[in-house]
Amino acid sequence: MKNLILASTSTIYGSSHLEYLLDSLQIHFKGVNEILFIPFARPGGITHDAYTAKVAESFKPLDISVNGLHEHNDKSKAIEHAQAIFTGGGNTFVLLKMLYHYNLLHTLRTVLQGGTPYLGTSAGSNICGLSINTTNDMPIVHPPSFKALGLVPFNINPHYLDPESNSTHMGETRAMRIKEYHAYNSPPVVGLREGSWLHIKHDHIVLKGEPTARIFEINKSPYELKSNSDLSVLH
Amino acid sequence: MKNLILASTSTIYGSSHLEYLLDSLQIHFKGVNEILFIPFARPGGITHDAYTAKVAESFKPLDISVNGLHEHNDKSKAIEHAQAIFTGGGNTFVLLKMLYHYNLLHTLRTVLQGGTPYLGTSAGSNICGLSINTTNDMPIVHPPSFKALGLVPFNINPHYLDPESNSTHMGETRAMRIKEYHAYNSPPVVGLREGSWLHIKHDHIVLKGEPTARIFEINKSPYELKSNSDLSVLH
Repeated sequence: MKNLILASTSTIYGSSHLEYLLDSLQIHFKGVNEILFIPFARPGGITHDAYTAKVAESFKPLDISVNGLHEHNDKSKAIEHAQAIFTGGGNTFVLLKMLYHYNLLHTLRTVLQGGTPYLGTSAGSNICGLSINTTNDMPIVHPPSFKALGLVPFNINPHYLDPESNSTHMGETRAMRIKEYHAYNSPPVVGLREGSWLHIKHDHIVLKGEPTARIFEINKSPYELKSNSDLSVLH
Repeated sequence: MKNLILASTSTIYGSSHLEYLLDSLQIHFKGVNEILFIPFARPGGITHDAYTAKVAESFKPLDISVNGLHEHNDKSKAIEHAQAIFTGGGNTFVLLKMLYHYNLLHTLRTVLQGGTPYLGTSAGSNICGLSINTTNDMPIVHPPSFKALGLVPFNINPHYLDPESNSTHMGETRAMRIKEYHAYNSPPVVGLREGSWLHIKHDHIVLKGEPTARIFEINKSPYELKSNSDLSVLH
């Protein structure tokens, strides 16, 4: 019954927040007039209120109102009763720590498995993988575990970036980091480039958007999958 | 009594492993004929043996032999008896988790406070800060805490990178990540560019190498410090 859009980024270069997704969101959120927004990832450290106001602005063209999960005293109940849910990007460690703090992972997993339409961008997509072991974010807080919602049978690396061929920087490339991940973890990693998203309907996982995705499986060379590829076979 | 070199990177572009540091290391490790190497960070997932062999090669010009901490059954004793210690780069989460696993943080802190000459590069420098909250690495394993050795009264961000002015990438810049860090943590962060290192003698902390360092203090605009600046005032 799952009905999820998991996007690499909320914003593509030269475009406003969520703009490139609006056509898809119009279909995805058909019949929805209010969305519950999870603002916990706080990009750049902005407040929950400011982040929620920004998102409310982005949903105006769809005539959908937005309320923030932080405003609810009973957060589990707010999730259970939500018509639809959006989790925005920011810091994945902060987001996951808050979900553990309020004990919301089980409830969120249950409603999303039950069909509540969901949008995740960046950190909000990352938490739908098996774990946040492949986030790009800085570990500015310490969550009790890196285990996440496990709504897809792999990990996501949002904002996937190819190595720059003319770089003189000696820090690890994204691909090298994911190789290190596979020294300790076996699940595949989907490197989602900006402009890509996963559309999950029941257990059918399809790559959408223009870019290809880079797939990292343990003991295999990384490879590319084109838009509209079926990722349901990855596990 | 501290006597530490904490370098942003082991290798600068177009140069071999540790090559740019050899002149300084010759002075730093004067009288030392054997170094204990901590290979736990395993860059790219290489084995402890392979990493130790690589480092042994790099120390040959200084006529210093290298043995790996992983070869010792009693790792605390190996640290206590070491003439000098080098911790190499790789994955900071893996490194710190291993130090917690073998219960080595206290011993390592004690000998380094007592004067054992130490070299850290990248992850090996990062663990000398207050915490690993400002690592760039992927959280491929979950350490029980992000608290680190605290041999300097701030955090280090190795491989510090300026934002690219012509980038179309929408992922967070390093500066934005550190701003997010300061939404949850108060200690300063020293952004150490590749080619820079901190020289710590007793409680005197001096920036060495050609690049300037970028300093991030809570509620202040980031600023640059030149080579040979005294960083002892940061706290």
